[in-house]
Amino acid sequence: MSKNKGVILLSGGLDSAVTAALAKEEGFQLEALTFRYNQKHLLEVDFARKLVSFFNLKKQVIIDIPAEIFQSALISKSNLKIYEGGQIRTIEKNDIPATYVPARNIIFLSYALAYAESVGVKDIFIGANIVDYSGYPDCRPEFFEAFSQMAQVGTKAGVKGDNFKIKTPLLYLSKAEIIKKGFDLGVDFSLTHSCYQPQAGGLLCGRCDSCLIRKKGFAEAKVEDPGEYLQE
Amino acid sequence: MSKNKGVILLSGGLDSAVTAALAKEEGFQLEALTFRYNQKHLLEVDFARKLVSFFNLKKQVIIDIPAEIFQSALISKSNLKIYEGGQIRTIEKNDIPATYVPARNIIFLSYALAYAESVGVKDIFIGANIVDYSGYPDCRPEFFEAFSQMAQVGTKAGVKGDNFKIKTPLLYLSKAEIIKKGFDLGVDFSLTHSCYQPQAGGLLCGRCDSCLIRKKGFAEAKVEDPGEYLQE
Repeated sequence: MSKNKGVILLSGGLDSAVTAALAKEEGFQLEALTFRYNQKHLLEVDFARKLVSFFNLKKQVIIDIPAEIFQSALISKSNLKIYEGGQIRTIEKNDIPATYVPARNIIFLSYALAYAESVGVKDIFIGANIVDYSGYPDCRPEFFEAFSQMAQVGTKAGVKGDNFKIKTPLLYLSKAEIIKKGFDLGVDFSLTHSCYQPQAGGLLCGRCDSCLIRKKGFAEAKVEDPGEYLQE
Repeated sequence: MSKNKGVILLSGGLDSAVTAALAKEEGFQLEALTFRYNQKHLLEVDFARKLVSFFNLKKQVIIDIPAEIFQSALISKSNLKIYEGGQIRTIEKNDIPATYVPARNIIFLSYALAYAESVGVKDIFIGANIVDYSGYPDCRPEFFEAFSQMAQVGTKAGVKGDNFKIKTPLLYLSKAEIIKKGFDLGVDFSLTHSCYQPQAGGLLCGRCDSCLIRKKGFAEAKVEDPGEYLQE
């Protein structure tokens, strides 16, 4: 299997952009997978395309998941509410929010695994983190460990001893630390999008979990946020 | 979560048909997921549709996986050869054949998991078995155990204690036993398709692993095989 090639889950958000920058710095040539799953923030896919160009990635595969698979506040036409009071959730509260999308990272990583095995790659990058995050179970280290274990027994490469590595370089970083790293590596944050409910003209809503975490992160990192927010 | 509803992976093959019959006999109302992944035997999807009607299933979701994800002899336009000498592989030989599709069951089960969690179902049926099979790693009990463990830590329902069950009622049955069970339950085997490389008019090729295992199974079960094979 190739040692300097990797597969990355590239959403178009800030975290996957910084993950791509870190992987490139490590010397990886990346191929990206991006998903359209009727997310309300489908706009992020346009940003993922811009990032593919910005990072000069070798290839991007865009994958469509039928609307019927997921029930979540994040999915178009869902009646569930994205907003929950304008406070950032903390891990301690342990209340998985309505924006949780059932088994989303499980599906995304499964595609990454199939693609990686098909093209002979063992390193799979995902920009998950559990410091400033929304409490999703499929972002936690115990999930990635269990997924890796499953990949080892469920694939030909795994059975033959070529272990896949699910690489999560942001897992234990705060959003401010992620932003600082990205800034130091020259990531153009204007090519990232972090809002669950983009407003007219693509403006960031400024009040969903994702926007709140982004704003706080840029403020703490003392980096200018190029995101254009809705003015209320 | 619902106790008498289940999600089934329905390919249109013999095994998934008998699995559906067994699940129905247990009292489950089933919703089916069927995949188009540029398989050479895309014809099986037509049979899956017929089985949905035969079993009077509540719903079927058909999911498309892009051609770029899988490299395998089973995929259209692949140069890899399906045939390998006309002998049925045995587990002991431990040579995973060219018809292995990387992480296929991992993707299929991930979709089933997402859909099950979305609709509040915990039982997921898959017609895998390891007696008369092709040696695929993602059909083995250790894989299903690892997948279940991963599902438990990676989903909201799992974290809350509502464990998903990956149900594999055929896992330890021979093909002949599967066919006998299906026969006893009234499965119409003419609505199943088991060939990796269907010939003109939908005839079964009679010499791929899947056909060889099917023919042997019907012969041993002393049940008439309604499959129409290419005459050579």
